[in-house]
Amino acid sequence: MIKSLLSSFLLCVGFVAWSQSNEEAVIRQIFDHALRKGKSYEMLYDLSVNVGPRLSGSPGAAAAVEWSRQVMTDFGFDTVWLQPLMVPHWVRGQKETGRINSKRSGTVDINVCALGGSIGTGPNGIAANVVEVKSFDELKILGTKGVQGKIVFFNRPLDPTKINTFAAYGGAVDQRASGASEAAKYGAVAALVRSMGSNLEDYPHTGSMRYAPNVVKIPALAISTKHAEQLSRLLKEEPDLQIYLENHSVTLEDVPSYNVIGEIRGSQFPEEIIVVGGHLDSWDLAQGAHDDGAGCVQSIEVVRLFKQMGYRPKRTIRAVMFMNEENGLRGGLKYAEQAALKKEKHIAAIESDRGGFVPRGFTVPTDEKAKARVRSWKPLLEPYGLSDFSTEGGGADIGPLANQGVPLLGFLPDSQRYFNYHHTPEDTIDKVDKRELELGSASMAALVYLIDQYGLK
Amino acid sequence: MIKSLLSSFLLCVGFVAWSQSNEEAVIRQIFDHALRKGKSYEMLYDLSVNVGPRLSGSPGAAAAVEWSRQVMTDFGFDTVWLQPLMVPHWVRGQKETGRINSKRSGTVDINVCALGGSIGTGPNGIAANVVEVKSFDELKILGTKGVQGKIVFFNRPLDPTKINTFAAYGGAVDQRASGASEAAKYGAVAALVRSMGSNLEDYPHTGSMRYAPNVVKIPALAISTKHAEQLSRLLKEEPDLQIYLENHSVTLEDVPSYNVIGEIRGSQFPEEIIVVGGHLDSWDLAQGAHDDGAGCVQSIEVVRLFKQMGYRPKRTIRAVMFMNEENGLRGGLKYAEQAALKKEKHIAAIESDRGGFVPRGFTVPTDEKAKARVRSWKPLLEPYGLSDFSTEGGGADIGPLANQGVPLLGFLPDSQRYFNYHHTPEDTIDKVDKRELELGSASMAALVYLIDQYGLK
Repeated sequence: MIKSLLSSFLLCVGFVAWSQSNEEAVIRQIFDHALRKGKSYEMLYDLSVNVGPRLSGSPGAAAAVEWSRQVMTDFGFDTVWLQPLMVPHWVRGQKETGRINSKRSGTVDINVCALGGSIGTGPNGIAANVVEVKSFDELKILGTKGVQGKIVFFNRPLDPTKINTFAAYGGAVDQRASGASEAAKYGAVAALVRSMGSNLEDYPHTGSMRYAPNVVKIPALAISTKHAEQLSRLLKEEPDLQIYLENHSVTLEDVPSYNVIGEIRGSQFPEEIIVVGGHLDSWDLAQGAHDDGAGCVQSIEVVRLFKQMGYRPKRTIRAVMFMNEENGLRGGLKYAEQAALKKEKHIAAIESDRGGFVPRGFTVPTDEKAKARVRSWKPLLEPYGLSDFSTEGGGADIGPLANQGVPLLGFLPDSQRYFNYHHTPEDTIDKVDKRELELGSASMAALVYLIDQYGLK
Repeated sequence: MIKSLLSSFLLCVGFVAWSQSNEEAVIRQIFDHALRKGKSYEMLYDLSVNVGPRLSGSPGAAAAVEWSRQVMTDFGFDTVWLQPLMVPHWVRGQKETGRINSKRSGTVDINVCALGGSIGTGPNGIAANVVEVKSFDELKILGTKGVQGKIVFFNRPLDPTKINTFAAYGGAVDQRASGASEAAKYGAVAALVRSMGSNLEDYPHTGSMRYAPNVVKIPALAISTKHAEQLSRLLKEEPDLQIYLENHSVTLEDVPSYNVIGEIRGSQFPEEIIVVGGHLDSWDLAQGAHDDGAGCVQSIEVVRLFKQMGYRPKRTIRAVMFMNEENGLRGGLKYAEQAALKKEKHIAAIESDRGGFVPRGFTVPTDEKAKARVRSWKPLLEPYGLSDFSTEGGGADIGPLANQGVPLLGFLPDSQRYFNYHHTPEDTIDKVDKRELELGSASMAALVYLIDQYGLK
């Protein structure tokens, strides 16, 4: 009996040892392929430079749909298809104008841009006094008396002491998302929001804003962080200075667009699907190299690497280019709706939407068992710089799958430089390092490989 | 008795808990100061742009000595002094010329630069046939018959599959360091070495080379990685093409220079010294922002942060700007010689010379006890992205202190982008991210704080 137990134990240890070394070898192979013969950077160059900006509803977005359909077809994915949906169609219009009219300092041009979803000022613009606040609480204290007829200048910066810049962003973005309606409640005529950037910069950051129901809509614009500092200084000297703002943005009727989906079918459990995805749309001002061209090409690269290596997955691996993450999330919602309708069995969904920076780890599922499983792979992934498995959650596009009990994960690259470029004309291909991008693709492929082999439950 | 044991235990637990939380609070404070009111980037801008290139013996190096003396004096360090030494004085001379003369493709200009220490070709240059090799073994097989009278083209790239790019560099740099003398043994007239860069680039990377004793000296130049690929292709079509190389570099007499040292004296154990340092010299082609301006300003910032925070260290903290790491290591040797002569007690030395990139961890001492002590601090440092304590060793400049039994450590930032810029005109301030640099300074200060509090033995 003891002998038999012992031999079972040894068999077990033997299997684990073999299995571990096989996993190590496959993961090593994934990284070798990605770093020697990877296509991530070439794809991202093409998407960023030749397709370019691709806000939902724009010709660029339509071109990006066709681009990704073609790329996945050319790489010989088993199936590539378009999933139709309707998307919001917001258009910026001609370039915005921003100007400080000061009695003491004269006229000072300021770099501003409309926030996505904002209405326009009309061709005559808006000229008004300014009141600076750091929070909605301050706004409330000012009340209608202090705000009526003015432009509210929201000037709370990203907290530089947060090590994770996404936490800093999360602590400031309420101003961009809801500032206009909060200000309008007290009679403001426009909202001017300090850009969501980590540094002092010349260029404004766009990004989505929402109007609350039953509140008057007022224009909402972002101001560059440098000009936000300057405006704040000038306001201290001259509280009654005026600002002139002019933007021509407008929301048109919804238009048709698509998620773009490509997959290779599983050899053993083809009905079990692992989704790996990013979002195809970008802001109109940006090439969208980091946000989220990187996530798109990395997702395609996962499948392409498997094909190049001759690895035939047990489960179906599906690369999804979601449409409309930036200003509507319609792609993520449509994908989840269709998955439920077709009773598809998703065993995991992984999103890459934090830029093409050097890998740090993965965000993990909330389910305890799935989380423990992912963390148990740390020894296999740590040699590749993947050591952070501390955060739970997936990404915006895959979020709607949570209701169906799908374990959600996210690729976690380093966050330090993300908010230098986010939603700006600076989010260009030259800000992406080839090796960093390739390491990200390989990291995601390694994770997908482990999930394919062992599942999460 | 049990009661007394228990209360001792509780006291002990209580102290540990207090101590741990106190350490946490101080480290948090270090990062807050560095990220809110840090001077790292401002200093590095000044050193990179206003001082600029500073190869040993150059006017730039003399200016950098004065710059760092002034900066540490202005920050109110207790003592700032210059440590005299003699340094090699190699001068590049006028810009190099490189040209392929091909019967099939005509004349093709190639981007080349002399390697540091190389002799010149003379004003008439060198025109010769080329033989390409990937290793010294290949060279040996070719022998005098295959090499005599030719230019040897060393074309082994950095291995892209090494995750740590320093390992890839280590696997290729023998070609740069010793290629000329190895080739000269078989009668070569010059060595042309593929640049030590991670990517395909237009610009060549300089760096030091050494002539072996009793071997004829021949000129040694680097060629950009893109032109190395092109040359390799052309050689396949036309093995007897010619290359023309011209460089005017020369080694002059040694000249006086200095290490620059600043310290704050310890309050309890002033005779116990913790060194934190980088090297002040850079290559002549580069601003030396990452290599090693970053290490210099981070070392100064450690001490400045302590002063700003009002933290009075128990031990003496000494920031050392070593001279001549790039082509002689005379600064490191002089510092160790003087430390031995004065019987100074160094309890640790930490070098930052891997660029101003996002922190990953630290390299640790070889001594088992000291290594275990550093690794025991991981829980305190991991929240700041410092999770890699796997590698042993310090850095080149502090290396000579090893003989005196000083525990050596190194700051370990991410390595992916380092060899994009290393020893090239691209190593400029705009390649340094402000937050990444500041996080590095804070990381080093946190480590120095822990060593100051608890020692390493």
